[in-house]
Amino acid sequence: MHYWHRLFSTRLAFVSTALLFWTATGAAVGATPLDPPVDPGILSRIVAAAMQGDWAYDRLTELTDRIGPRLAGSPGLEAAVQQVAGVMRALGATVTLQPARVPHWVRGDERGELVVYPGQPKGITQRLHLVALGESGATAPAGLTARVVVVHDFDELKARASEIDGNVVLFDLHFDQRLAMNGNAGNAYAQGGVGRFVGPSAAAELGAIAVLVRSVGGAEYRLPHTGATEWKEGQVPIPAAAVSAEDADLIDRLAARGPVTLKLLLTPRMLPDADSHNVIADWMGREKPDEFVVVSGHLDSWDLGTGATDDGVGVMAAAGAIEVLKRLDLHPRRTVRFVAWTNEENGGRGAKAYFSSVASAVDKQVAAIESDEGAGRSLGLLAAVTPESLVTLKPVAKALAPIGATVVEKRDDGVGSDIGALQHAGVPGFAPLVATQHYFDYHHTAADTLDKVEPENLRTQIATMAVLAYYLAELPEPLPRFKVEDAE
Amino acid sequence: MHYWHRLFSTRLAFVSTALLFWTATGAAVGATPLDPPVDPGILSRIVAAAMQGDWAYDRLTELTDRIGPRLAGSPGLEAAVQQVAGVMRALGATVTLQPARVPHWVRGDERGELVVYPGQPKGITQRLHLVALGESGATAPAGLTARVVVVHDFDELKARASEIDGNVVLFDLHFDQRLAMNGNAGNAYAQGGVGRFVGPSAAAELGAIAVLVRSVGGAEYRLPHTGATEWKEGQVPIPAAAVSAEDADLIDRLAARGPVTLKLLLTPRMLPDADSHNVIADWMGREKPDEFVVVSGHLDSWDLGTGATDDGVGVMAAAGAIEVLKRLDLHPRRTVRFVAWTNEENGGRGAKAYFSSVASAVDKQVAAIESDEGAGRSLGLLAAVTPESLVTLKPVAKALAPIGATVVEKRDDGVGSDIGALQHAGVPGFAPLVATQHYFDYHHTAADTLDKVEPENLRTQIATMAVLAYYLAELPEPLPRFKVEDAE
Repeated sequence: MHYWHRLFSTRLAFVSTALLFWTATGAAVGATPLDPPVDPGILSRIVAAAMQGDWAYDRLTELTDRIGPRLAGSPGLEAAVQQVAGVMRALGATVTLQPARVPHWVRGDERGELVVYPGQPKGITQRLHLVALGESGATAPAGLTARVVVVHDFDELKARASEIDGNVVLFDLHFDQRLAMNGNAGNAYAQGGVGRFVGPSAAAELGAIAVLVRSVGGAEYRLPHTGATEWKEGQVPIPAAAVSAEDADLIDRLAARGPVTLKLLLTPRMLPDADSHNVIADWMGREKPDEFVVVSGHLDSWDLGTGATDDGVGVMAAAGAIEVLKRLDLHPRRTVRFVAWTNEENGGRGAKAYFSSVASAVDKQVAAIESDEGAGRSLGLLAAVTPESLVTLKPVAKALAPIGATVVEKRDDGVGSDIGALQHAGVPGFAPLVATQHYFDYHHTAADTLDKVEPENLRTQIATMAVLAYYLAELPEPLPRFKVEDAE
Repeated sequence: MHYWHRLFSTRLAFVSTALLFWTATGAAVGATPLDPPVDPGILSRIVAAAMQGDWAYDRLTELTDRIGPRLAGSPGLEAAVQQVAGVMRALGATVTLQPARVPHWVRGDERGELVVYPGQPKGITQRLHLVALGESGATAPAGLTARVVVVHDFDELKARASEIDGNVVLFDLHFDQRLAMNGNAGNAYAQGGVGRFVGPSAAAELGAIAVLVRSVGGAEYRLPHTGATEWKEGQVPIPAAAVSAEDADLIDRLAARGPVTLKLLLTPRMLPDADSHNVIADWMGREKPDEFVVVSGHLDSWDLGTGATDDGVGVMAAAGAIEVLKRLDLHPRRTVRFVAWTNEENGGRGAKAYFSSVASAVDKQVAAIESDEGAGRSLGLLAAVTPESLVTLKPVAKALAPIGATVVEKRDDGVGSDIGALQHAGVPGFAPLVATQHYFDYHHTAADTLDKVEPENLRTQIATMAVLAYYLAELPEPLPRFKVEDAE
């Protein structure tokens, strides 16, 4: 997932939330409201069914073992499109491949080395662990050699503006692991990630010839974390790489004692846009098949790991929601539409293609759900909805009480990057509220692999998405529209 | 550190131990024995002084920041010899550089890729994260391509002997992280590590053309762990590499479904032996300067990380013990001899050179201490000593009570690889009993870096080594000899 569309939201840290807690005991017989709009027995059966079996985990294993990385433009992503389309056809859903042209950035060689530094013995250099950021520019084929200027925030970049020209900048912003461990990993990512999101662009404007950023993540195993960086319109990308936390620390300590010179080689290439597809699979509604509740995750991943947690798990949780409906032979009033988005990580072109295709009849999009915050246990829902809708959602939280996923957190700034445009157009938006304590330990690294997914956690996400999707598709009247305002 | 010299010891898992616990309150005034052989007030002052300041941590920072990796034969190791010699001279110790010829193995390129596997989509291969093992042979410059046979133990290797010839073997032995977290990381390492220690040799005898081993360690961040492997006399080394735990899992899952073919490139080289040195620094005894208590760690490290925990921390804990004696102006009866061993990791040539130099007067070596189990907190002592010596050691445990390092564990099979030969010759051997729960998360990886060392933990190791060294050097009579028998 990326968060940078929310980065400058003043509401991010102080988001207005309404929390509803529903106790497990509250879910016992007799606590159901009068005249429930949707049969609560069915909701409970959905949750119970979702917690049984490994259908989705087995397909996640197939996706990550057989295909692995799935960056936009790669053969892996298109193989995954075919695989997921086959999986959804086998369920009996109506599958469409929706074309999207996607950026095609390819990683090349990448090496970094400290070649001059204070106290350096003769014949010694220090090798860095780094990976190019998505959309990084390339160095000359022989690399570049320049001094490193370390800054710890954007004020320091500004204060040292005169030192930047012709040099390399290291943004050494720390990821606040304690904040993440205490349940606000999203803010830790936004705070620690700003150096990656816009640092390269800002440094380039001051004449920097390359940028390093401290990896944005919570674990320190000499593991660099890649990710997208944002260039301004018309800006020529300069070489930009993430170094491991350990290497950032090393450079910071050495630079505090005297000049540090870096040799850097990065040879990524930006190729012409490539063909890709969203996988759309409709589980047809029995009364209003042209009204849609979207359940989704994104199929593309970064190129270093196998994208098990970002976001294979989201795709398979959404697929699992359809599988539960099939297993229980449930056909709600409206169509439940599975979408596996293409190109979330570095372009969002899949989301744009979908929105374009539905914009003229966006009122038929009655709700949109996306799971893209990793493989943690579901604790409930994030909901970009009106205050009254929170009341309407109570039976969903109640049905989820047996698995403890009863929190409903109102998110006025929206949830999920692929369903952002829909929410700006008034479509109520949802995501499972996922425990993210360890998500950023592996995020955008080579270590985002299958073993990081606990089957039981995946089941809780399936349960959450399945019961929510069914409920929203079955409600006699859709939820009222809720327009997420553009935060910028 | 390596453990393989103990690997086949039947006593390893069931080592006869005697534990002495000394409570913090037991160390209060009045609990001292009558006629203590060494002034307990001085012992307490040593512990208190060791817990103050960052002299050793600052020098560890210098070692790892300025020099980094220190594999035998590398310029880093010899720069470290000079640095440590300078540090010890500045303390006023009498410094000798003791020559040793060391193996000179150099890592080359290393790449692995699954090129054929069940369910593989067209155009997709899977890249492995691997590192050559020390003493690995090389593939042809273009690499090799062969089927992978996965075995989970040596019985399976034997049972599948007919499949091995001409193929690659993966030893997929798991490191038992729960055992490590419960305080027996040494056994977890011995059990999980046997595939690395002797697997390549055993597979080569059956005709394997290369070997992969699952990394021996407790954390799964796609981080391969290197280390030494042991070839039989006259055996030609075949290519041997450690894959990350994640990659071992992947190969194991795929191979369970059908044939898996690997492409492997490893280009390490074994160069002629190189010159290296033990750094010996004597803190002269006031009465018996020709009797020695050795305090030591090993200066060489693997080439992937900066060897902060294996074993920069041991070297600096030993140096810190001398610094405490200097700071308190203490000159015990015998000489306290600091040794920074060379080439512990892949040859033990420093230890051999030292033993050769003292063998004819080994009775003058009255005790030997080595710290080489990482940067954890000291919990007390490991002691290869007679049962009576445990009683003699009580005042040491008592002096360490304020920092809780009161356990004295008898180890009949010896402690510390560099002081092994001394112990076989009857020299009482010691190590700080270090908490190793997280040691193998980083062991022999690129992530063995300074940030893994907590200054407070280092202080506890200094306190343990300083008070023990002083006590052993001050005792009116040396401890009785204790001969560690060769376990094999």
